[in-house]
Amino acid sequence: MSQASWEARAEWPLAGAAILFLVVYSMQVIGQPNGTWAVILLTVIWIIWVVFLVDYAVRLYLAEHRRRWFIRNIHELLIVALPMLRPLRLLRLITLLRTLHKVGGHALRGRLVTYVIGSVAILSYVAALTVLDIERMEPGANITSMGDALWWAMATITTVGYGDFYPVTIVGRLIATALMIGGIAVLGVVTATLASWLVESVAAETTAEVESGDQALQNELAEVKEQLRLLLESNRTTTSEKTPS
Amino acid sequence: MSQASWEARAEWPLAGAAILFLVVYSMQVIGQPNGTWAVILLTVIWIIWVVFLVDYAVRLYLAEHRRRWFIRNIHELLIVALPMLRPLRLLRLITLLRTLHKVGGHALRGRLVTYVIGSVAILSYVAALTVLDIERMEPGANITSMGDALWWAMATITTVGYGDFYPVTIVGRLIATALMIGGIAVLGVVTATLASWLVESVAAETTAEVESGDQALQNELAEVKEQLRLLLESNRTTTSEKTPS
Amino acid sequence: MSQASWEARAEWPLAGAAILFLVVYSMQVIGQPNGTWAVILLTVIWIIWVVFLVDYAVRLYLAEHRRRWFIRNIHELLIVALPMLRPLRLLRLITLLRTLHKVGGHALRGRLVTYVIGSVAILSYVAALTVLDIERMEPGANITSMGDALWWAMATITTVGYGDFYPVTIVGRLIATALMIGGIAVLGVVTATLASWLVESVAAETTAEVESGDQALQNELAEVKEQLRLLLESNRTTTSEKTPS
Amino acid sequence: MSQASWEARAEWPLAGAAILFLVVYSMQVIGQPNGTWAVILLTVIWIIWVVFLVDYAVRLYLAEHRRRWFIRNIHELLIVALPMLRPLRLLRLITLLRTLHKVGGHALRGRLVTYVIGSVAILSYVAALTVLDIERMEPGANITSMGDALWWAMATITTVGYGDFYPVTIVGRLIATALMIGGIAVLGVVTATLASWLVESVAAETTAEVESGDQALQNELAEVKEQLRLLLESNRTTTSEKTPS
Repeated sequence: MSQASWEARAEWPLAGAAILFLVVYSMQVIGQPNGTWAVILLTVIWIIWVVFLVDYAVRLYLAEHRRRWFIRNIHELLIVALPMLRPLRLLRLITLLRTLHKVGGHALRGRLVTYVIGSVAILSYVAALTVLDIERMEPGANITSMGDALWWAMATITTVGYGDFYPVTIVGRLIATALMIGGIAVLGVVTATLASWLVESVAAETTAEVESGDQALQNELAEVKEQLRLLLESNRTTTSEKTPS
Repeated sequence: MSQASWEARAEWPLAGAAILFLVVYSMQVIGQPNGTWAVILLTVIWIIWVVFLVDYAVRLYLAEHRRRWFIRNIHELLIVALPMLRPLRLLRLITLLRTLHKVGGHALRGRLVTYVIGSVAILSYVAALTVLDIERMEPGANITSMGDALWWAMATITTVGYGDFYPVTIVGRLIATALMIGGIAVLGVVTATLASWLVESVAAETTAEVESGDQALQNELAEVKEQLRLLLESNRTTTSEKTPS
Repeated sequence: MSQASWEARAEWPLAGAAILFLVVYSMQVIGQPNGTWAVILLTVIWIIWVVFLVDYAVRLYLAEHRRRWFIRNIHELLIVALPMLRPLRLLRLITLLRTLHKVGGHALRGRLVTYVIGSVAILSYVAALTVLDIERMEPGANITSMGDALWWAMATITTVGYGDFYPVTIVGRLIATALMIGGIAVLGVVTATLASWLVESVAAETTAEVESGDQALQNELAEVKEQLRLLLESNRTTTSEKTPS
Repeated sequence: MSQASWEARAEWPLAGAAILFLVVYSMQVIGQPNGTWAVILLTVIWIIWVVFLVDYAVRLYLAEHRRRWFIRNIHELLIVALPMLRPLRLLRLITLLRTLHKVGGHALRGRLVTYVIGSVAILSYVAALTVLDIERMEPGANITSMGDALWWAMATITTVGYGDFYPVTIVGRLIATALMIGGIAVLGVVTATLASWLVESVAAETTAEVESGDQALQNELAEVKEQLRLLLESNRTTTSEKTPS
């Protein structure tokens, strides 16, 4: 089996594993369970980890140029190997976004808007969850509940930034920076989509005029051709009339 | 009577009821009246509620596929049934915006600008009012007067976000999120309208050139046609001269 | 003398008076002078006021339809009559912007950029000055020096809004709101100018192609015309040759 | 040797000196070394200063109109002469950006994006470094570690502005203002690039239609030319047939 066909088959199971991971991780962070529940959740997370590990190993094994693939996909190893980068496994959810892609239809702007809404929702939620997980126990931290974390994420991604909540750890700030950049991207996409729609709507009339101009030219040409046809005929008549004489 | 004709007839009375609701709700929140006044305002709010309830019931009764209409318009039931969602009745004010629509004229950008100014004004005022109503009594809240609430709304919708005032309750934060998204929309519409205007202004010259090119082509074609006409005539003359000979 | 010719003549003296007002007002607010200096500055401000009052009176006198002019220009009366609205006299500085207009050259975007830089500089400085004047004596105010006021103005017009300084009075907040709206306008103009420039640069190639297409058509038509000319000549030769025979 | 050829030769050594300055300055500010290390770093900074001084002197000497060059490049003298403006020597790093230019390829938007990412990275880092250097010892300052300074720079350039950190000195605030303006530029470029790409993608279809219209016209013209050729030939045949008769 080639690497590509494995990736095609593994795409959806891995997206499912990422969703399961998101659910279990959310329960862990928000619910902070004790006893049996904590053990169950931890077990599920370990199983998901094994799934990702197996996927990594199979893809490495199936790679045409193993060494080159290893070096180019060093980030995948880090995501699998380092527990700290666990949340990055959620990048698998991009598979879901690719499906939204199809929902958005053929129109470029429709797809873009669907992507943006999907990305913003996932990015905000995951950022809030991870920042809460990291900051909660930190002395001097102010993001200590899921409500506060979501509120902070909204104020950050819209670039409002009240400053009533903000991360204080390095990892929390790195996530916040990703969220800020996401916010600038959102502003950009919203504005650009609107601008493109406006430009097109206004330009539609202009194009219609240019096309009607082309149409007029073609009508004129048709007349010219008709006249030429008459000429040729009359010429032939002349010639044929003359020949017998 | 069909549902559509009821909706057409009920549109303006309901917009009127929404305006009345806005006025009475404002008086309640800002004035915090006691005694007789409080009773009068409460009575008016109850009457407006009955109006919205009747409208909902009639539309449900007139619906072609009642069950389907019921499921699709579940949000309308919630707005009528839950006192907490009362401010959403102000969505009826969109009817007014649709009138502004006509004020803005035929031009797409003109209408867009009118929509934005209208929406921003209504959104900011309603958000300030509702947040004040919800936050005021909350322990630890800092938005406790209409002046502060309006100031907070302005700092939020422009994405400045000083952080001197911010909501602390869940409902208040949901309203704030709506306001932030409104702010991004405002930024987007302002920028896009400007960009579209600039692109069009710059493109106007380009189009003029293309059109003058078309004009030149048409002039050439006209000359060609004239020459052909001469040819045909001269040909016919030749033929006719020859025929008698 | 007509109202229009008075306005043309009074334009520059009034802009000069506005600049003088800005200088004197700045000295008053920043320097907070005592004794003789305070008296001199106050006298100059009173003289400037008389200049604006005379201008208002003359324009009212020269108006064709005095009542209509009075109603339509009620804001001018308020600016002259209410000392609180004194800073609005600086709106006369728009005359200066109109000159910048000429500096920016014929290009639409060049002019726009010049306008924006000029407006931002004037708006920020005037807002900082006025807010300082209004807030300074207020209990609980935090904008108490010109440096802080300018810093606050920069953080506001760029929509950063740290929240280390913010106005606390109603008038101060109204000025801040104007500054925020100015900030959104700046963002919009900067982005729109860049977008328009990019769209045009990319479109330039497309237009070049369309024009080369037109050129090709014209070349073809020229050939067609040449052939027709030959035809006509050969036809005439035929006819003339035939006529003598 | 002319001034231009000196500048061409000195460009890369000076960029190297600027990078070295950045490294040494970073070590000085972040590491705050004592003893031998402090002396070494200081020595290197003095040597770099001499390099910049020599470059300035040589360019002044080689200038065609020395007085004019001196007046027009007064800012270069200030950067060399005033220790406070030392960080501005990093402007030499623009040479590096010009190289990124080439990396971005021929496409206008590709180059723009490369410029923006490069500028943002350098601007944020240098601003954080300089603000930390200036603020650290100030009483009442809150930016006292490189982590905090970088975090503050990110919150500022994205216009989020939490307000958990902010400069309190005049120089620090001037740098912050530069960073804010940089942030607005970033927002503008991101949005404009997206908008231009969207407009072009949507316009590509329109252009294709216009071009197919031109193509149709050219096909018609080709037919016309063919018919004319036939006419001319038949005419010549007629004439030649007639001549012998």
